[in-house]
Amino acid sequence: MTRYKVVLEYDGTDLIGWQENRQGPSVQSVMKDAIEKFCGARPDIVGAGRTDAGVHAVAMTAHFDINGDHSAQTVMRALNFYLTEKPVSVLSCEVVSDEFNARFDCTARHYKYIVLNRGAAPVLQKNRVYWVPRKLNIDAMRVAAEKLIGNHDFTSFRATQCQAKSPIKTLDRIEIIQNGDEIIFEFSARSFLHHMVRNIVGTLIEIGLGKPYDIDEILATRNRSAAGPTAPASGLYFIHADY
Amino acid sequence: MTRYKVVLEYDGTDLIGWQENRQGPSVQSVMKDAIEKFCGARPDIVGAGRTDAGVHAVAMTAHFDINGDHSAQTVMRALNFYLTEKPVSVLSCEVVSDEFNARFDCTARHYKYIVLNRGAAPVLQKNRVYWVPRKLNIDAMRVAAEKLIGNHDFTSFRATQCQAKSPIKTLDRIEIIQNGDEIIFEFSARSFLHHMVRNIVGTLIEIGLGKPYDIDEILATRNRSAAGPTAPASGLYFIHADY
Repeated sequence: MTRYKVVLEYDGTDLIGWQENRQGPSVQSVMKDAIEKFCGARPDIVGAGRTDAGVHAVAMTAHFDINGDHSAQTVMRALNFYLTEKPVSVLSCEVVSDEFNARFDCTARHYKYIVLNRGAAPVLQKNRVYWVPRKLNIDAMRVAAEKLIGNHDFTSFRATQCQAKSPIKTLDRIEIIQNGDEIIFEFSARSFLHHMVRNIVGTLIEIGLGKPYDIDEILATRNRSAAGPTAPASGLYFIHADY
Repeated sequence: MTRYKVVLEYDGTDLIGWQENRQGPSVQSVMKDAIEKFCGARPDIVGAGRTDAGVHAVAMTAHFDINGDHSAQTVMRALNFYLTEKPVSVLSCEVVSDEFNARFDCTARHYKYIVLNRGAAPVLQKNRVYWVPRKLNIDAMRVAAEKLIGNHDFTSFRATQCQAKSPIKTLDRIEIIQNGDEIIFEFSARSFLHHMVRNIVGTLIEIGLGKPYDIDEILATRNRSAAGPTAPASGLYFIHADY
């Protein structure tokens, strides 16, 4: 048995998310299909994050075990061959110790969320951004974002179906970068609650549109209904996992 | 009659190119459909460039005439409404003099070509780049590109079906920019021959792969067969037209 650590790029548009279930293709099912075609077995594949339907990955780290001792390069080439025309691609592959765990060994997770802030709908970036036609006040969003950094009870930004034991998380970084018509929100933390990034972005957008949301009050209320709506999945990317 | 100057973004993947014909949807036919829904007429629409099937535009300038005197904002909003879910979007619209001509008044055209140079196939950039898995020598491509700048007979880089009167063009700029796994080729000239950018990129890629192409010799030979293959449309973008 050999353990492989892979880094994956995926387009979440037509996937039901990371997790395999019967509703449609997922990152796990697409990867397991490719692994099965290569070696006949269908091992579990564990990722640093379990992204939702429509969420993309620039570089998601995962691990799985295969019988035998194929070189990392052989595994990468074989999987990419069987992934041809699929929305998942293996960017890198290495053999790791049996103790490596892509989920539990991850020390930090990085996400970005892209808003396209212009009058005309996205064409070249369709399904890759969230389109907000009304002008956003970036300074107001930055002031609000600053208040979310640090250790907080994020209950107000947590999906009701979130299974994490504690709503208390440390958000290490939020940065808001303007690049032409794009507004890019970058997030870093050891871990995130379910929908936490999308709920924060949804709330910051409301603030950018001039709605009277107060971050300190939202955090103190500890109730999902205190914060803004969940921003759509299409703008969210898992960027990197640190180990 | 009022003349409107518009700037368009389009995803060329499912379009047969700029020009309207019966084989399928084109930028012209999609725009004319939207204009017809708005005002009942189907005026000609003239663009700064006539891109081929699969070629994209970040900002293509065009003009057309509509009866009456609708404001530019009304026209832009109406067209974008009728373009919903279509691969063309109107980024800006202004009323211009009847003498403005998007094709003949254009003083410079700017294109970019994106190569994805990595082992794994593109997923997030599918249909947006040309994937070259073998490592390209950027320095060799830069040295070769330098030789194409200036006034030359570009017969060797011209499609056999090209209708331009003269094969002599002045290429003002080629720049090759590396951005992670992407290699971006930027081109500027008053005008280009048919397939000129794609034939130059196809030849530079061969040089980047170590093939013994000699730009001076290719230019002197004045024969399409002397240069490399035509790079695929998916990597090409019309970036901007100057007036």
